[in-house]
This record gives sequence, structure tokens and C-alpha cells, in this order.
Amino acid sequence: MDEFGLVHRYFSTQTCRRDDVRLGIGDDAAVVTPNPDYELVVTTDVLIDGIHFPPSTPPAALGHKALAVNISDIAAMGAEPAWATLNLALPVSDERWLTDFSAGFLEIADRFGIALIGGDTVCGPLAIGVQLIGQTPAGSALRRDGARSGDRIYVTGTLGDAGLGLRACTGELSIDGEDRAHLIDRLQRPLPRVEVGRVLRGIASAAIDVSDGLAADLGHILERSGCGADVDLARLPLSDTYRRCDPGWDPAVSGGDDYELCFTVAPERNAALQAATHELNVPITMIGAISDQPGLRLRDECGRHYQSAQGGYRHFQD
Amino acid sequence: MDEFGLVHRYFSTQTCRRDDVRLGIGDDAAVVTPNPDYELVVTTDVLIDGIHFPPSTPPAALGHKALAVNISDIAAMGAEPAWATLNLALPVSDERWLTDFSAGFLEIADRFGIALIGGDTVCGPLAIGVQLIGQTPAGSALRRDGARSGDRIYVTGTLGDAGLGLRACTGELSIDGEDRAHLIDRLQRPLPRVEVGRVLRGIASAAIDVSDGLAADLGHILERSGCGADVDLARLPLSDTYRRCDPGWDPAVSGGDDYELCFTVAPERNAALQAATHELNVPITMIGAISDQPGLRLRDECGRHYQSAQGGYRHFQD
Repeated sequence: MDEFGLVHRYFSTQTCRRDDVRLGIGDDAAVVTPNPDYELVVTTDVLIDGIHFPPSTPPAALGHKALAVNISDIAAMGAEPAWATLNLALPVSDERWLTDFSAGFLEIADRFGIALIGGDTVCGPLAIGVQLIGQTPAGSALRRDGARSGDRIYVTGTLGDAGLGLRACTGELSIDGEDRAHLIDRLQRPLPRVEVGRVLRGIASAAIDVSDGLAADLGHILERSGCGADVDLARLPLSDTYRRCDPGWDPAVSGGDDYELCFTVAPERNAALQAATHELNVPITMIGAISDQPGLRLRDECGRHYQSAQGGYRHFQD
Repeated sequence: MDEFGLVHRYFSTQTCRRDDVRLGIGDDAAVVTPNPDYELVVTTDVLIDGIHFPPSTPPAALGHKALAVNISDIAAMGAEPAWATLNLALPVSDERWLTDFSAGFLEIADRFGIALIGGDTVCGPLAIGVQLIGQTPAGSALRRDGARSGDRIYVTGTLGDAGLGLRACTGELSIDGEDRAHLIDRLQRPLPRVEVGRVLRGIASAAIDVSDGLAADLGHILERSGCGADVDLARLPLSDTYRRCDPGWDPAVSGGDDYELCFTVAPERNAALQAATHELNVPITMIGAISDQPGLRLRDECGRHYQSAQGGYRHFQD
């Protein structure tokens, strides 16, 4: 099996057919027709074996997650994902692995209407690079730099389950049964909040996806917007499983890998937010407010400042 | 230095500023505004240490080549490159390496008017993934599947120098002085034929870039177009250095890495081809013709069939 055959054999079964794909896999490049009234939103992320996922991760979950983390970036811009390319470095050409990986990748691609339009497969230590292009009406993209003092801070879903899932995988957290399955599912099969991001256009003043942990990612909004924030830890949305594990605040504050959205909304847009989100069936929780005072202040139910034991995950940290 | 800082510090010096980049590096994703009358052309390629380049390759040359091979794919579609993303896996954060690599990458990006709009940097064995988006007027993209019997086959520039450059790097070819410098330059710093591809819109019936070697790449055109070809080896354009090395036909036929264009033109479009290319200052050589008879036939000056010792480079070959 050669590099050309790999892409063709395992990824040609995609059921998602987009009318805007003029030419897919198999030429020097793919040709797609963007919506002329839309802007393009472009992102890319790489997953490396042993760094971004435990070596025990099933290949189908890897295929899912490699695309999901990119969809999450597109969701955080308020855009709709459209066309993906996939770069795979594989130590060996393992048919079973590729079958499972491509099944996981294509399942989430089809779910979100994404066409796989190209890629490159090379021999090397396992690494998965995905690049994803989305579209959003011109001028509507949600950015990190629009938060203003007085804006409320919201998050979707629940926080910290993926971080606990990682602890369960590494044996740091001893847990069994449905709770274990729930946490590992949250770690391995995140479902990006595309629908939420989409309705936040024109409503949110800033948005980001929670990939490195709430403190780190909200920190990016604060840095780019030139402001600070006060967050009530008691308001953080936690799953029942999280509460049963009772791990303290750290997984919810710094755990990362949740792929929920964190966004800010001016008080006068609050009614619009409620109207836009109430039919989505996604929990949306207000956790604090943007402030003129620089810095991120996390306070527990007694008003005490909380210092996270660790920041978000960073490579090459000094 | 963390992953965010890496992208910012080393790649923020880019001088190329495109008006169509609404939001560059530093958010969840970049935002760009495509030309509404154009289609998008999307490609991606990965370079792995020790497979796609000898470990001795200078980092500036790697930066150049990682982008150049993608530009070449865009050129082969007749499109103009516009926006790139870069994924880097690095074993260590080496300031000197990054300075040189980014200089090489940005130099060719600026030369071709390409904006770097995003990327991801992770810790791992050295690998470089680039994804490049180009644009071309709707319906004008050059494909591999349009060659028809009777079309003439052309190549740009000269063939085989990059293959000889690789032999020089590995010590397989003993050569010194300007000839050595020329060959290694062809290997390490290919200049994609964007200008040629652009004028071939509406003229070429099929096109591909020569990355895996003439025989392999012309073979892709034949396979996709459902036809065969006859090539006169004596017509292959060879550099003076190549002739002095006198390595036989193999580097020119199967060497790869030349990043010239190979394209086909119907006889009635020959005058248009001459008119469109004569001011470009790029050698364009007719090397054979497309035939109804399947297969690629390479004949030397005596009319003898030539069997290439090796096909183009393929990963995971059985």
C-alpha cells in the first residue's frame, strides 16, 4: 500500500457529499467553491502520540478527536466547518489501525457535514495533523479581542470531565463503571459546539474554545481584549460524575480538552442570548464578569482567591 | 518559549501583508476573504526528517522547501497561492534553528505573496506540515484528467538536477564546485512555476508538478485521463551540469523533487501556448505526445524502449 492508495482506500467511503467540492482527493490539489457572501475561517492542529493522547487511545477515538479539536476552533469563531485536509505520519502501514482511524474520522466529518478534500501520508512516528476551513457570513466571526468590562462570561456544557478522563486513563484516578466510561468518552470523543457558536454571531463579544483549560483560555480572551475577569468557582458547571469524584477545582479550572465554548456577552445582549440558545438543548452557564481590573480572579464560595496548581498545557515551557 | 510564543516570535516578521487577511495568527482560527469570482485550491504536504530531506539540510532550506512543494501543487492547478498554515513538530525548542527555518519560510512566502495565517507547534520528532490555499477564476483550475490522444506533452525548466543533488548529498555522486552547488540548490531551493501555471489556464488540457519523477507524475496524468504516452528521451531538457555528470536517463526520468510542471496541450492550442509563455523566460520543452494506446513508452534516440530502474518515490511500498 503506497501513500496514494492509503488516502484513497481508507477515506473514499465518506458519505458526506458537498456540492461546493469541484475536485476532491486525487489531483495536485482540491478545488472548492466558497459561498461568495462568506469569509473563510482557517485552523490547524496536530496531535502527537504520547503528548496529546495516551498511547492506549483507540484509533477510532483518535480519528474522531483529531478532527473534533479543529471543528471546535471553527465553532469558537461562530463559523460552519466545510473542508478538511488530513496529514498522517504512521510508523507502519497497519490496515486495522487505518480502518478504525478512518471510521472515527469520517463519522464525525459526516456528522458535521465536512468533506475530506486532501491529505498526505508519510512514514514516521505517529502524528496526526488536520487543517480545517469553515465559512461564516462576512464580518460575523467571533474573535478573542472583543470582551469589555461589564460583559458576562459564559461556558457551555460542563468543565473538567476530560481532565478527569485523562487521570482515569493514566491510573491517577481510580474509577469504574459508568462514571469511568463517561469521563473517558468526554476525553476521547468531544463534540464541538458548532450550533452554539453559530447562534452567538452578533451576540457574543468574544469567544474561545476550552482546549487548554478554562483559566488559560479565558486568559487568552483577557489578554487580547486588554481586560480582567472575576469568576465564581461555585458557578462552574460540573457533571454529576465530577461531583462524585470530588477532585477539587483543578480539573475544571485547568484540566483542558473539554472543547466547550467560553464566551462573553454584553448585559444588553443577554435577552438575545437567551432567545438564541434556549432551543439548543445545551447547558449555558454564567460564571462571572469581565472587569477593568487586569488579571483573572477565581473566587470560591467563601470569597477566597483560588490559585490553580497548574496553568493550561503548554509545549516547550521554560 | 511556549507553543504560542514560538509562532509569534519567529513568524511575526513577515513583510507580506494581504488585504484579504481579516484576522491572522493569534485567535482560534484565521479569517480571510476570498475573491468572490474565484474558486479555492487547497493542498497539503508533510516533510519528515531523514525521509524527505537528508539530516544535513540547512534549516533555512527546509523552511523554503516545505512551502515550495505546496506552492508547486498550487502552480500545477494554474492557481495563485494566497494563505498558508504551518505545523511544526520539533524535538527541542532550538532558537537558532527556528530563526533560520522561519527566515527561509518567510522569504519564499513573501516572494510569492503568501500570508502565513496560522499553525501549531508541538514537541516531537522533526516534521513539517504545510497547508496552502490558492485561488483561481471559477472553472479555470488545471486538472490531471483532461489529456487527450494527440495532445503534446511539455515540461518546464530542466529535469533530474534535484535527483543528482540528492546523490551529491549522500555521497553517491562525487562532484565539486559550481556544479555541486547548482545541484544542491535545485534540491534544496526549488522555485515553483506559478507564473507558468497561471498562463496555462485555458491552454493546457492537463497538468501536474514533477515531484515524484517525470515517469511517475506523467503516469498520474495518463491514469486519470485514461490514455497513454510516447516520450522521446532525447528531447528531455537537461542542464549543462547534468550533461557533465552523464548519469544516464534515470535522474531525469525518475529522480523527483524537480518541481517543474509537466502539462499537455492540444495541437490547436499550440499557438496560444507559444504566445502565452514566450515572455516568461522559462524554458518550455515538448517531450512527446499523448496516445490512445495505454502505458508510458520512453524511447531513446535509437528508438529503443527504456525501462526506468525505479519508479517515483512511494511510501509504504509493498
